Amino acid sequence: MAKRIRLEKRVVAESDRLAKELSDRFNRAGVFVANLMSSPGAGKTTLLEETARRLGAELRLAVIEGDLATDRDARRIQAAGIPCRQINTGGGCHLSARQILDALADFDLGGLDVLFIENVGNLVCPAEFDLGEHRRVVVSSTPEGDDKPVKYPIAFHHADCVVLNKIDLLAATNFSLEAFRRYVKGLKPRIPILELSCRTGEGVEQWLVWVRAERRAVAAKVARAAR
Amino acid sequence: MAKRIRLEKRVVAESDRLAKELSDRFNRAGVFVANLMSSPGAGKTTLLEETARRLGAELRLAVIEGDLATDRDARRIQAAGIPCRQINTGGGCHLSARQILDALADFDLGGLDVLFIENVGNLVCPAEFDLGEHRRVVVSSTPEGDDKPVKYPIAFHHADCVVLNKIDLLAATNFSLEAFRRYVKGLKPRIPILELSCRTGEGVEQWLVWVRAERRAVAAKVARAAR
Repeated sequence: MAKRIRLEKRVVAESDRLAKELSDRFNRAGVFVANLMSSPGAGKTTLLEETARRLGAELRLAVIEGDLATDRDARRIQAAGIPCRQINTGGGCHLSARQILDALADFDLGGLDVLFIENVGNLVCPAEFDLGEHRRVVVSSTPEGDDKPVKYPIAFHHADCVVLNKIDLLAATNFSLEAFRRYVKGLKPRIPILELSCRTGEGVEQWLVWVRAERRAVAAKVARAAR
Repeated sequence: MAKRIRLEKRVVAESDRLAKELSDRFNRAGVFVANLMSSPGAGKTTLLEETARRLGAELRLAVIEGDLATDRDARRIQAAGIPCRQINTGGGCHLSARQILDALADFDLGGLDVLFIENVGNLVCPAEFDLGEHRRVVVSSTPEGDDKPVKYPIAFHHADCVVLNKIDLLAATNFSLEAFRRYVKGLKPRIPILELSCRTGEGVEQWLVWVRAERRAVAAKVARAAR
């Protein structure tokens, strides 16, 4: 067991070193990076498709897609008009800093304003791995039920923003907006909760407002640190 | 890396040994065990609540609940009238054979007909861990999208039965039943796909039929092996 713990510490230290390297590269290139995590099917890809359509003319966007298998999501993102690199993890339950570093070879980072990392659909494992991102976004959705924040607290606890997708299905489920907000705020009192529907478009504008504002905030912070 | 692989092999071997011990205990006790896995919020607990209500007078049922945090699901199952033991994994992304062995101390196995193990909501990690169960069930749901079998093939590949829940939401989503069936059958041509809605009750009867039939099939096989 002592051997196992030592080994885990070594692996974690290497992962943290690579995450720091990623963070430095992102800051040098002046690109804002957001890491999206959620249950399978909560709507990360659909949110990024909408983002590409609505923000693609204003900001230079790109996406790194993480999935166990298939390039379906990458093809959807590319069809929405922005560059995308697919990573297939095989059985891996999250993206790793090493995989992101390797994928960066495909991008001209300096030519980007925003890079979205769509993690593997999994509300548990991705939360434990820093990918050098500036912001973490958890996407939840109404059919999953309002209790996900208390049942999967680690992901929500490490998030900077919660997107609640599929509010068009509210009436068809027993989801309580009041309970969901209370559970999220119980973990992180000041976190923004963006309630929207990628399907109908309702509320998506506030997500774009958040992306623009966070990108500006990060750029200002990086500029201050460089002085 | 060689050290890491050796260590992983040792951990896997121990897990397999415990799974075999569980399987032997289940067979000696004559209890049918099904391991349920799904994305967060696909409806495993609701399916088990319905099962408790509809089958609880006919068969002696019990449930082991796996969650990162809270005893919410165990309380729901107990409220539906059957014994339930909650396991909290902390950050763990799946239930382990060791956790199941420990939980069995709370049950009189010989007094049970069916034990359901509700795994942690995660379509990736639980698929890799044998808990000594007789059957594996993947619960999928229409709002997650019809592409989950191809994007998370390992869970579906190891399943003995696929439950497609929330068919009452079909009209409100762009889910294609035809595509979903094709994807599942592409991985496992003969696997049953039980399309139902725990919310409306539609189709739940075929799940009860499956549980009864599989329990009988397993009991017959165990009896043959003992002769």
